[in-house]
Amino acid sequence: MTTASHLSAQSTQPAQLAATRDPAKRSWLAAANDAACDFPIQNLPFGIFSDPLNDAPRAGVAIGDAIVDLAALQAAGLLSVAGDADVFSRPALNAFIALGRDEWRSVRVQLSALLDAECPTLREHAALRARVLVPMRDATMHLPVDIPGYTDFYSSKEHATNVGSMFRDPKNALLPNWSEMPIGYNGRASSVVVTGTPVRRPMGQLKLPDAERPIYGACRKLDIELETGFIIGRGNALGEPVACDEAEDHIFGMVLLNDWSARDIQQWEYVPLGPFNAKTFATTISAWVVTLDALEPFRVSQPEQSPEPLAYLRHEGRHAFDISLEVTLRPEGVDKPTTICRTNFKYMYWTMAQQLAHHTVSGCNTRVGDLMGSGTISGPTPDSFGSLLELTWNGARPLSIEGGGTRTFIVDGDELALAGWCQGAGYRVGFGACVGKILPASAGKGGA
Amino acid sequence: MTTASHLSAQSTQPAQLAATRDPAKRSWLAAANDAACDFPIQNLPFGIFSDPLNDAPRAGVAIGDAIVDLAALQAAGLLSVAGDADVFSRPALNAFIALGRDEWRSVRVQLSALLDAECPTLREHAALRARVLVPMRDATMHLPVDIPGYTDFYSSKEHATNVGSMFRDPKNALLPNWSEMPIGYNGRASSVVVTGTPVRRPMGQLKLPDAERPIYGACRKLDIELETGFIIGRGNALGEPVACDEAEDHIFGMVLLNDWSARDIQQWEYVPLGPFNAKTFATTISAWVVTLDALEPFRVSQPEQSPEPLAYLRHEGRHAFDISLEVTLRPEGVDKPTTICRTNFKYMYWTMAQQLAHHTVSGCNTRVGDLMGSGTISGPTPDSFGSLLELTWNGARPLSIEGGGTRTFIVDGDELALAGWCQGAGYRVGFGACVGKILPASAGKGGA
Repeated sequence: MTTASHLSAQSTQPAQLAATRDPAKRSWLAAANDAACDFPIQNLPFGIFSDPLNDAPRAGVAIGDAIVDLAALQAAGLLSVAGDADVFSRPALNAFIALGRDEWRSVRVQLSALLDAECPTLREHAALRARVLVPMRDATMHLPVDIPGYTDFYSSKEHATNVGSMFRDPKNALLPNWSEMPIGYNGRASSVVVTGTPVRRPMGQLKLPDAERPIYGACRKLDIELETGFIIGRGNALGEPVACDEAEDHIFGMVLLNDWSARDIQQWEYVPLGPFNAKTFATTISAWVVTLDALEPFRVSQPEQSPEPLAYLRHEGRHAFDISLEVTLRPEGVDKPTTICRTNFKYMYWTMAQQLAHHTVSGCNTRVGDLMGSGTISGPTPDSFGSLLELTWNGARPLSIEGGGTRTFIVDGDELALAGWCQGAGYRVGFGACVGKILPASAGKGGA
Repeated sequence: MTTASHLSAQSTQPAQLAATRDPAKRSWLAAANDAACDFPIQNLPFGIFSDPLNDAPRAGVAIGDAIVDLAALQAAGLLSVAGDADVFSRPALNAFIALGRDEWRSVRVQLSALLDAECPTLREHAALRARVLVPMRDATMHLPVDIPGYTDFYSSKEHATNVGSMFRDPKNALLPNWSEMPIGYNGRASSVVVTGTPVRRPMGQLKLPDAERPIYGACRKLDIELETGFIIGRGNALGEPVACDEAEDHIFGMVLLNDWSARDIQQWEYVPLGPFNAKTFATTISAWVVTLDALEPFRVSQPEQSPEPLAYLRHEGRHAFDISLEVTLRPEGVDKPTTICRTNFKYMYWTMAQQLAHHTVSGCNTRVGDLMGSGTISGPTPDSFGSLLELTWNGARPLSIEGGGTRTFIVDGDELALAGWCQGAGYRVGFGACVGKILPASAGKGGA
């Protein structure tokens, strides 16, 4: 039997890491080898789960249709981390992430070896498998990390141009600062929820056209924003900016992110300090964090940037990733979802590295677990826009929906789902679900 | 000897609580009876401290020139909390605060009794006093709470009018949404620092007048914002707004807050998503949290609000507090600080209760320890403006400073100090120091 001691952190070599991404690699777990599965052996994303036999949220890795219980694997002597740290039985990944990239990579290499079709350790021992594998269908997923801070950027040129055209001036849609820096703002970390959490339509102040004063009421223009997010794996101290060409070393991995937006509340409140209640009621992220190590084969060049960014925003090489993205909408009582958007992360103008360098250039500190949203990801064509605001051009062009009917903005009972994956040769590195269903508004105690 | 068991939480009666605020009450600790002391027996603010004999940050209460070590007091059997919870030896007050208002009040009543001039328990026992009292001059103060979220409002009518006059249109200085809601935005919690922490002048993007493109450089218009902050003592669940007339029950207490601002960075970056790098490099708060129970005698009526707010923002009664506020500036090498601003918290247009009701109206959840800034507090006269931006009218009217010289914005080496207190009859309930000294910018790794 392979033992953990053979695979300590010190032994992680570039060749071992590269082997975890070998397109030809297969697992003894059949579901992982399905070309349409989000979680092949090349992925190995991290998350937090519980199950009916053990309701304590703990760390797991997705493989096929199952979850590897990392604490159980460690207890079985099959998984080693530095100092035998008790990091996998926590209800968030932060403590594991804080161990550092060498440990993330070591765990990846160890899991890749154990799950390999050629490895008998688990394959040939049903009792051991039963202890360390949990069927995904039985599991409840939780937020993967405690999120000390959430920042949202605005880095799609197409999205910023569309919004500027609608709400400002089509001839000067892009503001002068947009092409000089990855514009961002602080979001609300407390209301980030994991996929599957229902989202209640928010109440708030709405200013109706021609009305003299606003009213208190339920949002009438509820929208999605198709985004990805990255999670900080290594913080920086206050006063110590992260250089652009070192920024990716600070990133643990990526998730899908739906930045739910109340467009009517936003329109009335956002000048001059930015969106607030329009965004703080919920932000949904996917449950599995796909590591940069898993995304490495899908690295591509970012779009050309003109004007050339200031020096602190320059980096050598390729810093975009080819991640296919889709959004579906499924009304209540309708079985078949409608795909309303198809786009790709590679269209983003500003890279994650540039976002992080800009975030910290003032000396702002980041912490392990911080979540940084990409901003709405819109592509060049009308069917690749990442929000209903853009897809329906602020309601002027309704979308046809499976089951009959149309949509401008979201209707109560609608289920919105984001999907994302990197297409490999015969496999795909996917992100899993990022889903939320809209519940009707409730006047609640704030009402009158 | 009075024992803790006589003073359990269940026994806290309104009369006992009122007695803690008796203006005639005196302590056996002489320094607490000085009319100019921020920490008389009527105050009893909570904080986190360490000292040379015990470098573990732990909970304390300020009295005169000393700190009561609450963990030591509890260990001595003189302080009781529900279930004898181990909440005072933690490095943040959150666990204590989470016990609830009955416990905050019970601890206040117990401390008021022990520190009363008439109570012999500590007064007559030097050895016991030595175990539970730490001289303030020996202590290091830490952030009083872990801050899960930081929100900053913009609730002074005078400030919003001044800024609108300078940067938009003097004739329409106040935007239409301003008088309908307490405008707020999410701040950066990670860079909130405790009084005394030096603040490094930030680097960032500056757009000089008439320049075609921005440059990377050190902030040239570094400013303060004189604010208070309140700390959430009871959170609300996602989707469950806090009603305006119940909002004060969710507030543990208040601090002074300096929302350092890089005006040139802000001017270039803030449209359309609000301030970001201009604010995220540091926010300084005072070390002692003054409870709403201590502030109660200083409750006054808020300014009249016209138009009448929407129903969800209405509350009966008085919800402002008469808190005198001052800002001083002391250049490096100059002994005497210059008072550059004198104002009062009671001028704020929107109350803390309205801020919290608005923050949560969309369903946004808050958590124990969340910090909510008031926004810059400017009064009606030019010497009561709460920022150098307003005091010098964006640099057009330099201020004269002790030691010769003038100031438009902050110079390296300047020490800026906020002070705040409620004036009672022969005593004052004060906030202690909120001080930061500006260090020169450092190009750092983000530079080029």
